[in-house]
Amino acid sequence: MKNFTWWNPTIVIFGKDTIPQIADQLAAVKAKSVLLVYGGKAIFKNGVYTQVTEALTKRNIAFPELGGVKSNPTIDKVREGVARVKASPVDAVVPVGGGSVFDTAKTIAAGAFYKGDPWDFFEGKASELQRALPIFGVLTASATASEVNNIAVVSNPEREAKTSFNSPFIFPRVSIIDPWVQTSLPEEQTVNGGIDIMTHAMERLFDGAEGVGLMDAQGYAIVKSMIELIPELRMNPENYEARAQYAWAASLAHNGSLSCGRGGRGDFSSHKLGHSLSLLFGVPHGASLSVMMPAWARYLHKENPTPFARFAEAVFGAGGGGQGSDEEERALEGIERLESFYRSVGAPTTLRELKIGEADIERVTQNAAAFAPFGALKPLTSDDILEIYKLAY
Amino acid sequence: MKNFTWWNPTIVIFGKDTIPQIADQLAAVKAKSVLLVYGGKAIFKNGVYTQVTEALTKRNIAFPELGGVKSNPTIDKVREGVARVKASPVDAVVPVGGGSVFDTAKTIAAGAFYKGDPWDFFEGKASELQRALPIFGVLTASATASEVNNIAVVSNPEREAKTSFNSPFIFPRVSIIDPWVQTSLPEEQTVNGGIDIMTHAMERLFDGAEGVGLMDAQGYAIVKSMIELIPELRMNPENYEARAQYAWAASLAHNGSLSCGRGGRGDFSSHKLGHSLSLLFGVPHGASLSVMMPAWARYLHKENPTPFARFAEAVFGAGGGGQGSDEEERALEGIERLESFYRSVGAPTTLRELKIGEADIERVTQNAAAFAPFGALKPLTSDDILEIYKLAY
Repeated sequence: MKNFTWWNPTIVIFGKDTIPQIADQLAAVKAKSVLLVYGGKAIFKNGVYTQVTEALTKRNIAFPELGGVKSNPTIDKVREGVARVKASPVDAVVPVGGGSVFDTAKTIAAGAFYKGDPWDFFEGKASELQRALPIFGVLTASATASEVNNIAVVSNPEREAKTSFNSPFIFPRVSIIDPWVQTSLPEEQTVNGGIDIMTHAMERLFDGAEGVGLMDAQGYAIVKSMIELIPELRMNPENYEARAQYAWAASLAHNGSLSCGRGGRGDFSSHKLGHSLSLLFGVPHGASLSVMMPAWARYLHKENPTPFARFAEAVFGAGGGGQGSDEEERALEGIERLESFYRSVGAPTTLRELKIGEADIERVTQNAAAFAPFGALKPLTSDDILEIYKLAY
Repeated sequence: MKNFTWWNPTIVIFGKDTIPQIADQLAAVKAKSVLLVYGGKAIFKNGVYTQVTEALTKRNIAFPELGGVKSNPTIDKVREGVARVKASPVDAVVPVGGGSVFDTAKTIAAGAFYKGDPWDFFEGKASELQRALPIFGVLTASATASEVNNIAVVSNPEREAKTSFNSPFIFPRVSIIDPWVQTSLPEEQTVNGGIDIMTHAMERLFDGAEGVGLMDAQGYAIVKSMIELIPELRMNPENYEARAQYAWAASLAHNGSLSCGRGGRGDFSSHKLGHSLSLLFGVPHGASLSVMMPAWARYLHKENPTPFARFAEAVFGAGGGGQGSDEEERALEGIERLESFYRSVGAPTTLRELKIGEADIERVTQNAAAFAPFGALKPLTSDDILEIYKLAY
């Protein structure tokens, strides 16, 4: 186990009818005006906009609005928000939505006191961040764990880049999670979100770290729970208990706890390879992962069978113990059973299904390789990346 | 799943050679003088006293000392510490030791700005706490998770009470955990501490909460890990990887995370029943639990087989699925296999082994029943408590 520092100061308020508390939390820090950030129509259809704004109004908290955040959010919306808060200062940024809205709000909060352009944070300047506006959020769709971590993922179409930055200043102060809101999420979003949650755990389980059996066990527990929860929610989308466990699994899978002792923040090659698909072809994040992680795993499983073999035993009960070709077989079995699970919930596992053609592979490779080498289990070169996309085809 | 609020602001610095950072952390908050709290000889033998005091000296931080904290700490030492810091103010309280030292330090920190006697906190007045000195600690023995929670457990021999209080003001600001220090712990302490860790998880697993399969899975993972780690450390006490996982399991088992969604803070009858044994007969905390939890579980398993049956399946692989007498049998199997594990690591499972006689049972019952009714799975009356101690004999 490697040395680590654990810190996560976010207050999570979780459960039914918790949303109005956002106003109490803001009042406690004497906020008078907050930038309300959201996406599209969902929060109007599901009543959350009304819940939030009524509560803020009761507390005499003004809420200038910045709507229109897209899934796979872009830096232009962030710049718009930063300009707004620099011109008319607010006391806090209040995302009301899913991961895209939280990531946008967190980056706006960071940019508020920064002299330069907020894209700088994504190009290595996050360490210059000294201060950010506080973030108080209401989560309406669980997957990314943005509500409980210090990461923001944003795209810059001009630079053909979808990437992230992290900073202690962008941990939300308070995040409210009412799983009841998520009972109206469309099936595809539930499946894609669920894949993101599983992948967050697997990015640690497959990073090659040793001496972290306890943390591995925590990760396997999340994956096994999701393997039950996703199919259950496809059948019974309004199952509150399942929504609640899905939501908390999402937070646990990527609040940083699974990285403790592993010597890094996980592998995350699959995420990077998936980001390029999202950027260039608009592929939803979860779908990009159901295609790319199995392909990445297949590419590496002969050279590094152990993490995949352990996964196969712990999650799918594949026969355990042997070394050598036994281990390689178990590794492959684990990957195949993962793919099989993805197909069983309607998720794509090939680029073809995403309507991405062989002719596009060069271009996607170039885009992903801009960040090469990356990956903890094996640092991937652009040659590796090309082979993995080919395997994914 | 019940609504919950999750907050744990403690910064944990974990790993080899981390102890000197305590001075850096104190310097960052401009501390000039800190009350150094510790127990007996251990920190002199294992070099930790030297590491801490040299680091503080380098930073020009004065450290008036309060030594002599006992395991199963008492309120008189707390009162001594409170008097000291009221007479000569300090900027922080710095426990260097195990759970007893942390609990003592946390209570001193709470008493520093309180007009009354610190035992008041244990008699229901913790909610009056408005402020406490910050706590920066160095953990030298993992078990209680005091380094990462908001609880303090202290005894009052005059009142024949061993009990706890909790307050957001007593979360440590920073806790440093160097597992290497724990490689010199005596075997009995390793076993007793390990039982405390397992019991913290089981107090949630057996509380009767429903709709928390994800959280149960996290708890089972901790118990299963400990079932491997305790025997390993008996054989190889200097196995750093095992010590590190044991230490992090300890923190995870009682930092509050396992209580999320369960509607309460766990059952904790076994803890209360064990406290009376510690108070009246000086029984080490872990040993009191290896005797009392199986007895409590046996007493309740016919009326409430489900949590114990699930435990048997998840932890010991006992054949799963059936209801009725099948479930009751699996419940009993789980309890018997737990007891069997305890015996295999040399822990007591009867009052007799603790040299507690049948004639003492009345007295112990009276002591524990002072807090009755208690317990989440079944609120225990003094009649129940008597029967459980008899079963434990």
